[in-house]
Amino acid sequence: MPRKPSYNKDDLIVLAKELFWKKGWAGTSMKDLESTLNMRPGSFYAAFGSKDRLFELAIEQYAKEGLARLERMKQKYGAFEALKRFPGEIVSGKDIPVRACMLSKTLLELQGQDNVLSEKANYHLTAMEKKFAAFFKEAQMDGHIRNDLNVKKLARRYQSDLMGLRITAERKDVDAKVLAKEISHDIVATLAVK
Amino acid sequence: MPRKPSYNKDDLIVLAKELFWKKGWAGTSMKDLESTLNMRPGSFYAAFGSKDRLFELAIEQYAKEGLARLERMKQKYGAFEALKRFPGEIVSGKDIPVRACMLSKTLLELQGQDNVLSEKANYHLTAMEKKFAAFFKEAQMDGHIRNDLNVKKLARRYQSDLMGLRITAERKDVDAKVLAKEISHDIVATLAVK
Repeated sequence: MPRKPSYNKDDLIVLAKELFWKKGWAGTSMKDLESTLNMRPGSFYAAFGSKDRLFELAIEQYAKEGLARLERMKQKYGAFEALKRFPGEIVSGKDIPVRACMLSKTLLELQGQDNVLSEKANYHLTAMEKKFAAFFKEAQMDGHIRNDLNVKKLARRYQSDLMGLRITAERKDVDAKVLAKEISHDIVATLAVK
Repeated sequence: MPRKPSYNKDDLIVLAKELFWKKGWAGTSMKDLESTLNMRPGSFYAAFGSKDRLFELAIEQYAKEGLARLERMKQKYGAFEALKRFPGEIVSGKDIPVRACMLSKTLLELQGQDNVLSEKANYHLTAMEKKFAAFFKEAQMDGHIRNDLNVKKLARRYQSDLMGLRITAERKDVDAKVLAKEISHDIVATLAVK
Protein backbone atom coordinates (compact mmCIF):
# COMPACT_ATOMS: atom_id res chain seq x y z
CA MET A 1 0.00 0.00 0.00
CA PRO A 2 1.51 3.41 -0.96
CA ARG A 3 2.38 5.65 1.94
CA LYS A 4 -0.04 8.54 2.43
CA PRO A 5 1.71 11.82 1.58
CA SER A 6 2.43 14.04 4.56
CA TYR A 7 1.19 17.19 2.85
CA ASN A 8 -2.18 18.64 1.96
CA LYS A 9 -2.20 19.29 -1.76
CA ASP A 10 -4.63 22.23 -1.55
CA ASP A 11 -2.42 24.01 0.97
CA LEU A 12 0.55 23.59 -1.33
CA ILE A 13 -1.39 25.03 -4.25
CA VAL A 14 -2.19 28.10 -2.15
CA LEU A 15 1.49 28.53 -1.29
CA ALA A 16 2.48 28.12 -4.92
CA LYS A 17 -0.16 30.67 -5.95
CA GLU A 18 1.36 33.31 -3.64
CA LEU A 19 4.83 32.65 -4.99
CA PHE A 20 3.85 32.62 -8.67
CA TRP A 21 1.68 35.70 -8.19
CA LYS A 22 4.63 37.63 -6.78
CA LYS A 23 7.45 36.41 -9.00
CA GLY A 24 5.68 35.43 -12.19
CA TRP A 25 6.08 32.27 -14.16
CA ALA A 26 9.66 32.68 -15.42
CA GLY A 27 10.74 34.41 -12.22
CA THR A 28 9.82 31.36 -10.14
CA SER A 29 12.47 28.69 -10.31
CA MET A 30 12.04 25.02 -9.43
CA LYS A 31 14.38 25.72 -6.53
CA ASP A 32 12.03 28.49 -5.28
CA LEU A 33 9.09 26.10 -5.49
CA GLU A 34 10.86 23.24 -3.75
CA SER A 35 11.94 25.57 -0.98
CA THR A 36 8.53 27.29 -0.53
CA LEU A 37 6.61 24.01 -0.64
CA ASN A 38 9.30 22.24 1.35
CA MET A 39 9.37 19.39 -1.14
CA ARG A 40 12.11 17.44 -2.84
CA PRO A 41 12.04 17.16 -6.64
CA GLY A 42 10.74 13.57 -6.48
CA SER A 43 7.71 14.38 -4.34
CA PHE A 44 7.10 17.56 -6.33
CA TYR A 45 6.85 15.70 -9.62
CA ALA A 46 4.80 12.91 -8.05
CA ALA A 47 2.32 15.47 -6.71
CA PHE A 48 2.10 17.97 -9.56
CA GLY A 49 3.77 16.54 -12.64
CA SER A 50 5.40 19.81 -13.69
CA LYS A 51 5.87 23.46 -12.85
CA ASP A 52 3.42 24.39 -15.61
CA ARG A 53 0.73 22.10 -14.27
CA LEU A 54 1.16 23.59 -10.80
CA PHE A 55 1.00 27.08 -12.29
CA GLU A 56 -2.29 26.13 -13.93
CA LEU A 57 -3.66 24.95 -10.58
CA ALA A 58 -2.38 28.13 -8.95
CA ILE A 59 -4.22 30.50 -11.31
CA GLU A 60 -7.33 28.33 -10.98
CA GLN A 61 -7.08 28.78 -7.22
CA TYR A 62 -6.55 32.53 -7.66
CA ALA A 63 -9.62 32.85 -9.89
CA LYS A 64 -11.74 30.74 -7.54
CA GLU A 65 -10.82 32.98 -4.61
CA GLY A 66 -11.61 36.11 -6.62
CA LEU A 67 -15.05 34.84 -7.56
CA ALA A 68 -15.78 33.73 -4.00
CA ARG A 69 -14.75 37.10 -2.64
CA LEU A 70 -17.09 38.91 -5.02
CA GLU A 71 -19.89 36.56 -4.05
CA ARG A 72 -19.32 37.25 -0.36
CA MET A 73 -19.40 40.99 -0.99
CA LYS A 74 -22.67 40.64 -2.87
CA GLN A 75 -24.24 38.62 -0.05
CA LYS A 76 -23.23 41.31 2.37
CA TYR A 77 -23.91 44.49 0.43
CA GLY A 78 -25.94 43.64 -2.66
CA ALA A 79 -24.68 43.68 -6.25
CA PHE A 80 -24.53 47.44 -6.85
CA GLU A 81 -22.76 48.25 -3.62
CA ALA A 82 -20.34 45.35 -4.18
CA LEU A 83 -19.41 46.78 -7.58
CA LYS A 84 -18.81 50.17 -6.00
CA ARG A 85 -16.73 48.76 -3.15
CA PHE A 86 -14.61 46.32 -5.13
CA PRO A 87 -12.09 48.85 -6.58
CA GLY A 88 -11.26 50.10 -3.08
CA GLU A 89 -11.05 46.55 -1.75
CA ILE A 90 -8.52 45.33 -4.27
CA VAL A 91 -6.06 48.15 -3.70
CA SER A 92 -6.24 48.10 0.08
CA GLY A 93 -5.68 44.37 0.63
CA LYS A 94 -2.79 43.87 3.04
CA ASP A 95 -2.12 40.17 2.78
CA ILE A 96 -1.40 40.05 -0.92
CA PRO A 97 2.03 39.55 -2.48
CA VAL A 98 1.57 42.25 -5.16
CA ARG A 99 -1.27 44.57 -6.09
CA ALA A 100 -1.48 43.62 -9.74
CA CYS A 101 -3.95 40.96 -10.83
CA MET A 102 -2.28 37.57 -11.22
CA LEU A 103 -4.29 36.87 -14.38
CA SER A 104 -3.17 40.13 -16.04
CA LYS A 105 0.39 39.41 -15.05
CA THR A 106 0.21 35.96 -16.58
CA LEU A 107 -1.41 37.22 -19.76
CA LEU A 108 1.21 39.93 -20.22
CA GLU A 109 4.13 37.71 -19.37
CA LEU A 110 3.21 34.74 -21.52
CA GLN A 111 1.01 35.89 -24.42
CA GLY A 112 3.98 37.19 -26.41
CA GLN A 113 5.67 33.82 -26.00
CA ASP A 114 2.61 31.86 -27.20
CA ASN A 115 2.62 29.96 -23.93
CA VAL A 116 -0.64 28.06 -23.46
CA LEU A 117 -0.84 29.28 -19.85
CA SER A 118 -1.80 32.73 -21.17
CA GLU A 119 -4.93 31.11 -22.64
CA LYS A 120 -5.75 29.67 -19.24
CA ALA A 121 -5.40 33.15 -17.75
CA ASN A 122 -7.71 34.51 -20.44
CA TYR A 123 -10.24 31.79 -19.64
CA HIS A 124 -10.37 32.90 -16.00
CA LEU A 125 -10.55 36.58 -16.99
CA THR A 126 -13.60 35.73 -19.07
CA ALA A 127 -15.24 33.95 -16.12
CA MET A 128 -14.58 37.03 -13.99
CA GLU A 129 -16.02 39.29 -16.66
CA LYS A 130 -19.19 37.17 -16.73
CA LYS A 131 -19.46 37.48 -12.99
CA PHE A 132 -19.24 41.25 -13.23
CA ALA A 133 -21.92 41.22 -15.95
CA ALA A 134 -24.20 39.17 -13.68
CA PHE A 135 -23.67 41.74 -10.92
CA PHE A 136 -24.47 44.64 -13.25
CA LYS A 137 -27.59 42.77 -14.38
CA GLU A 138 -28.66 42.25 -10.79
CA ALA A 139 -28.01 45.92 -10.01
CA GLN A 140 -30.30 46.75 -12.92
CA MET A 141 -33.03 44.43 -11.67
CA ASP A 142 -32.69 45.98 -8.23
CA GLY A 143 -33.35 49.36 -9.82
CA HIS A 144 -29.89 50.81 -9.12
CA ILE A 145 -28.51 50.97 -12.64
CA ARG A 146 -30.15 52.34 -15.75
CA ASN A 147 -31.95 49.73 -17.82
CA ASP A 148 -30.75 51.06 -21.17
CA LEU A 149 -27.14 50.06 -20.45
CA ASN A 150 -25.64 46.88 -21.87
CA VAL A 151 -24.32 44.84 -18.95
CA LYS A 152 -21.75 42.96 -21.03
CA LYS A 153 -20.18 46.23 -22.13
CA LEU A 154 -20.30 47.60 -18.60
CA ALA A 155 -18.57 44.50 -17.28
CA ARG A 156 -15.80 44.62 -19.86
CA ARG A 157 -15.10 48.28 -19.23
CA TYR A 158 -15.22 47.78 -15.48
CA GLN A 159 -12.79 44.89 -15.61
CA SER A 160 -10.46 46.76 -17.94
CA ASP A 161 -10.40 49.81 -15.69
CA LEU A 162 -9.72 47.60 -12.67
CA MET A 163 -6.76 45.98 -14.41
CA GLY A 164 -5.40 49.46 -15.09
CA LEU A 165 -6.00 50.42 -11.48
CA ARG A 166 -4.11 47.40 -10.24
CA ILE A 167 -1.09 48.16 -12.42
CA THR A 168 -1.15 51.76 -11.25
CA ALA A 169 -1.28 50.47 -7.68
CA GLU A 170 2.08 48.76 -8.30
CA ARG A 171 3.76 52.09 -8.95
CA LYS A 172 5.74 53.71 -6.23
CA ASP A 173 4.61 57.15 -5.06
CA VAL A 174 1.10 56.59 -6.41
CA ASP A 175 -1.87 56.54 -4.05
CA ALA A 176 -4.12 54.06 -5.80
CA LYS A 177 -6.91 54.55 -3.26
CA VAL A 178 -7.65 57.95 -4.74
CA LEU A 179 -7.96 56.37 -8.16
CA ALA A 180 -10.15 53.57 -6.80
CA LYS A 181 -12.50 56.15 -5.32
CA GLU A 182 -12.77 57.94 -8.65
CA ILE A 183 -13.71 54.70 -10.40
CA SER A 184 -16.37 53.99 -7.77
CA HIS A 185 -17.62 57.55 -8.01
CA ASP A 186 -17.95 57.30 -11.79
CA ILE A 187 -20.03 54.15 -11.50
CA VAL A 188 -22.57 56.12 -9.54
CA ALA A 189 -22.25 59.30 -11.60
CA THR A 190 -22.66 57.70 -15.00
CA LEU A 191 -24.65 54.50 -14.48
CA ALA A 192 -26.95 55.00 -11.52
CA VAL A 193 -30.64 55.67 -11.85
CA LYS A 194 -31.06 59.32 -10.96
CA MET B 1 43.12 52.75 -33.97
CA PRO B 2 40.12 50.60 -33.04
CA ARG B 3 38.07 49.34 -35.97
CA LYS B 4 34.80 51.17 -36.42
CA PRO B 5 31.93 48.81 -35.56
CA SER B 6 29.90 47.68 -38.58
CA TYR B 7 26.56 48.26 -36.84
CA ASN B 8 24.48 51.26 -35.93
CA LYS B 9 23.85 51.13 -32.20
CA ASP B 10 20.51 52.96 -32.38
CA ASP B 11 19.17 50.48 -34.91
CA LEU B 12 20.16 47.62 -32.63
CA ILE B 13 18.39 49.23 -29.69
CA VAL B 14 15.22 49.46 -31.77
CA LEU B 15 15.50 45.76 -32.66
CA ALA B 16 16.11 44.85 -29.03
CA LYS B 17 13.12 46.94 -27.98
CA GLU B 18 10.80 44.96 -30.28
CA LEU B 19 12.12 41.67 -28.96
CA PHE B 20 11.98 42.61 -25.27
CA TRP B 21 8.53 44.16 -25.72
CA LYS B 22 7.19 40.91 -27.13
CA LYS B 23 8.95 38.35 -24.96
CA GLY B 24 9.60 40.27 -21.76
CA TRP B 25 12.80 40.45 -19.78
CA ALA B 26 13.07 36.84 -18.57
CA GLY B 27 11.56 35.47 -21.79
CA THR B 28 14.36 36.99 -23.88
CA SER B 29 17.50 34.89 -23.75
CA MET B 30 20.99 36.01 -24.63
CA LYS B 31 20.72 33.62 -27.56
CA ASP B 32 17.56 35.40 -28.77
CA LEU B 33 19.35 38.74 -28.54
CA GLU B 34 22.47 37.56 -30.32
CA SER B 35 20.38 36.08 -33.08
CA THR B 36 18.05 39.10 -33.49
CA LEU B 37 20.89 41.61 -33.39
CA ASN B 38 23.13 39.33 -35.41
CA MET B 39 25.96 39.77 -32.93
CA ARG B 40 28.40 37.44 -31.25
CA PRO B 41 28.71 37.54 -27.45
CA GLY B 42 31.99 39.49 -27.61
CA SER B 43 30.61 42.35 -29.74
CA PHE B 44 27.38 42.32 -27.72
CA TYR B 45 29.16 42.88 -24.44
CA ALA B 46 31.51 45.43 -26.00
CA ALA B 47 28.52 47.39 -27.30
CA PHE B 48 26.03 47.10 -24.44
CA GLY B 49 27.77 45.71 -21.39
CA SER B 50 24.90 43.49 -20.33
CA LYS B 51 21.38 42.34 -21.15
CA ASP B 52 20.03 44.56 -18.38
CA ARG B 53 21.77 47.65 -19.71
CA LEU B 54 20.36 46.97 -23.17
CA PHE B 55 16.91 46.45 -21.66
CA GLU B 56 17.23 49.83 -19.99
CA LEU B 57 18.10 51.44 -23.34
CA ALA B 58 15.21 49.58 -24.96
CA ILE B 59 12.54 50.93 -22.59
CA GLU B 60 14.09 54.39 -22.90
CA GLN B 61 13.66 54.09 -26.66
CA TYR B 62 10.09 52.84 -26.21
CA ALA B 63 9.21 55.79 -23.95
CA LYS B 64 10.85 58.27 -26.30
CA GLU B 65 8.81 56.97 -29.22
CA GLY B 66 5.61 57.14 -27.19
CA LEU B 67 6.20 60.76 -26.22
CA ALA B 68 7.13 61.71 -29.79
CA ARG B 69 4.00 60.06 -31.13
CA LEU B 70 1.79 62.00 -28.72
CA GLU B 71 3.57 65.20 -29.69
CA ARG B 72 2.96 64.53 -33.38
CA MET B 73 -0.72 63.90 -32.71
CA LYS B 74 -0.98 67.16 -30.80
CA GLN B 75 0.67 69.10 -33.62
CA LYS B 76 -1.80 67.62 -36.05
CA TYR B 77 -5.05 67.65 -34.07
CA GLY B 78 -4.55 69.80 -30.97
CA ALA B 79 -4.32 68.53 -27.39
CA PHE B 80 -7.97 67.66 -26.76
CA GLU B 81 -8.47 65.80 -30.01
CA ALA B 82 -5.16 63.96 -29.49
CA LEU B 83 -6.36 62.75 -26.08
CA LYS B 84 -9.58 61.53 -27.66
CA ARG B 85 -7.83 59.78 -30.52
CA PHE B 86 -5.02 58.16 -28.59
CA PRO B 87 -7.00 55.19 -27.13
CA GLY B 88 -8.11 54.16 -30.64
CA GLU B 89 -4.60 54.64 -31.98
CA ILE B 90 -2.89 52.36 -29.49
CA VAL B 91 -5.20 49.42 -30.07
CA SER B 92 -5.21 49.64 -33.85
CA GLY B 93 -1.45 49.78 -34.43
CA LYS B 94 -0.43 47.06 -36.86
CA ASP B 95 3.34 47.10 -36.64
CA ILE B 96 3.62 46.41 -32.94
CA PRO B 97 4.77 43.14 -31.41
CA VAL B 98 2.07 43.05 -28.72
CA ARG B 99 -0.75 45.39 -27.74
CA ALA B 100 0.17 45.75 -24.09
CA CYS B 101 2.33 48.67 -23.00
CA MET B 102 5.98 47.68 -22.63
CA LEU B 103 6.31 49.76 -19.47
CA SER B 104 3.33 48.04 -17.80
CA LYS B 105 4.71 44.67 -18.83
CA THR B 106 8.07 45.50 -17.32
CA LEU B 107 6.56 46.83 -14.11
CA LEU B 108 4.39 43.74 -13.66
CA GLU B 109 7.12 41.29 -14.54
CA LEU B 110 9.88 42.75 -12.40
CA GLN B 111 8.35 44.67 -9.48
CA GLY B 112 7.66 41.49 -7.51
CA GLN B 113 11.28 40.49 -7.94
CA ASP B 114 12.62 43.86 -6.74
CA ASN B 115 14.47 44.22 -10.01
CA VAL B 116 15.73 47.78 -10.48
CA LEU B 117 14.46 47.79 -14.07
CA SER B 118 10.90 48.05 -12.73
CA GLU B 119 11.90 51.42 -11.24
CA LYS B 120 13.13 52.52 -14.64
CA ALA B 121 9.77 51.52 -16.11
CA ASN B 122 8.02 53.52 -13.40
CA TYR B 123 10.19 56.52 -14.20
CA HIS B 124 9.05 56.47 -17.83
CA LEU B 125 5.42 55.94 -16.81
CA THR B 126 5.70 59.09 -14.71
CA ALA B 127 7.10 61.04 -17.66
CA MET B 128 4.19 59.82 -19.78
CA GLU B 129 1.70 60.79 -17.08
CA LYS B 130 3.20 64.30 -17.00
CA LYS B 131 2.82 64.53 -20.75
CA PHE B 132 -0.86 63.60 -20.46
CA ALA B 133 -1.30 66.22 -17.72
CA ALA B 134 0.25 68.86 -19.98
CA PHE B 135 -2.19 67.87 -22.74
CA PHE B 136 -5.16 68.09 -20.38
CA LYS B 137 -3.91 71.52 -19.24
CA GLU B 138 -3.63 72.67 -22.82
CA ALA B 139 -7.11 71.35 -23.58
CA GLN B 140 -8.34 73.40 -20.64
CA MET B 141 -6.60 76.54 -21.87
CA ASP B 142 -8.09 75.94 -25.32
CA GLY B 143 -11.52 75.93 -23.68
CA HIS B 144 -12.30 72.27 -24.42
CA ILE B 145 -12.16 70.86 -20.91
CA ARG B 146 -13.79 72.18 -17.77
CA ASN B 147 -11.53 74.43 -15.70
CA ASP B 148 -12.58 72.97 -12.36
CA LEU B 149 -10.94 69.63 -13.13
CA ASN B 150 -7.51 68.74 -11.74
CA VAL B 151 -5.28 67.86 -14.69
CA LYS B 152 -2.94 65.68 -12.64
CA LYS B 153 -5.83 63.52 -11.54
CA LEU B 154 -7.23 63.41 -15.06
CA ALA B 155 -3.87 62.30 -16.40
CA ARG B 156 -3.43 59.55 -13.84
CA ARG B 157 -6.91 58.17 -14.46
CA TYR B 158 -6.47 58.41 -18.22
CA GLN B 159 -3.16 56.57 -18.13
CA SER B 160 -4.55 53.91 -15.80
CA ASP B 161 -7.55 53.29 -18.04
CA LEU B 162 -5.27 53.06 -21.08
CA MET B 163 -3.10 50.45 -19.37
CA GLY B 164 -6.25 48.45 -18.68
CA LEU B 165 -7.35 48.88 -22.28
CA ARG B 166 -4.04 47.60 -23.55
CA ILE B 167 -4.18 44.49 -21.38
CA THR B 168 -7.73 43.88 -22.52
CA ALA B 169 -6.53 44.26 -26.11
CA GLU B 170 -4.21 41.29 -25.54
CA ARG B 171 -7.15 39.01 -24.87
CA LYS B 172 -8.38 36.76 -27.59
CA ASP B 173 -12.00 37.23 -28.70
CA VAL B 174 -12.10 40.77 -27.35
CA ASP B 175 -12.64 43.71 -29.69
CA ALA B 176 -10.61 46.39 -27.94
CA LYS B 177 -11.65 49.03 -30.46
CA VAL B 178 -15.12 49.11 -28.94
CA LEU B 179 -13.60 49.70 -25.53
CA ALA B 180 -11.26 52.39 -26.90
CA LYS B 181 -14.28 54.21 -28.34
CA GLU B 182 -16.05 54.10 -25.00
CA ILE B 183 -13.03 55.63 -23.26
CA SER B 184 -12.86 58.41 -25.87
CA HIS B 185 -16.59 58.94 -25.59
CA ASP B 186 -16.38 59.29 -21.81
CA ILE B 187 -13.69 61.94 -22.10
CA VAL B 188 -16.12 64.06 -24.02
CA ALA B 189 -19.17 63.13 -21.94
CA THR B 190 -17.62 63.80 -18.55
CA LEU B 191 -14.87 66.37 -19.08
CA ALA B 192 -15.81 68.56 -22.00
CA VAL B 193 -17.19 72.04 -21.64
CA LYS B 194 -20.88 71.73 -22.51
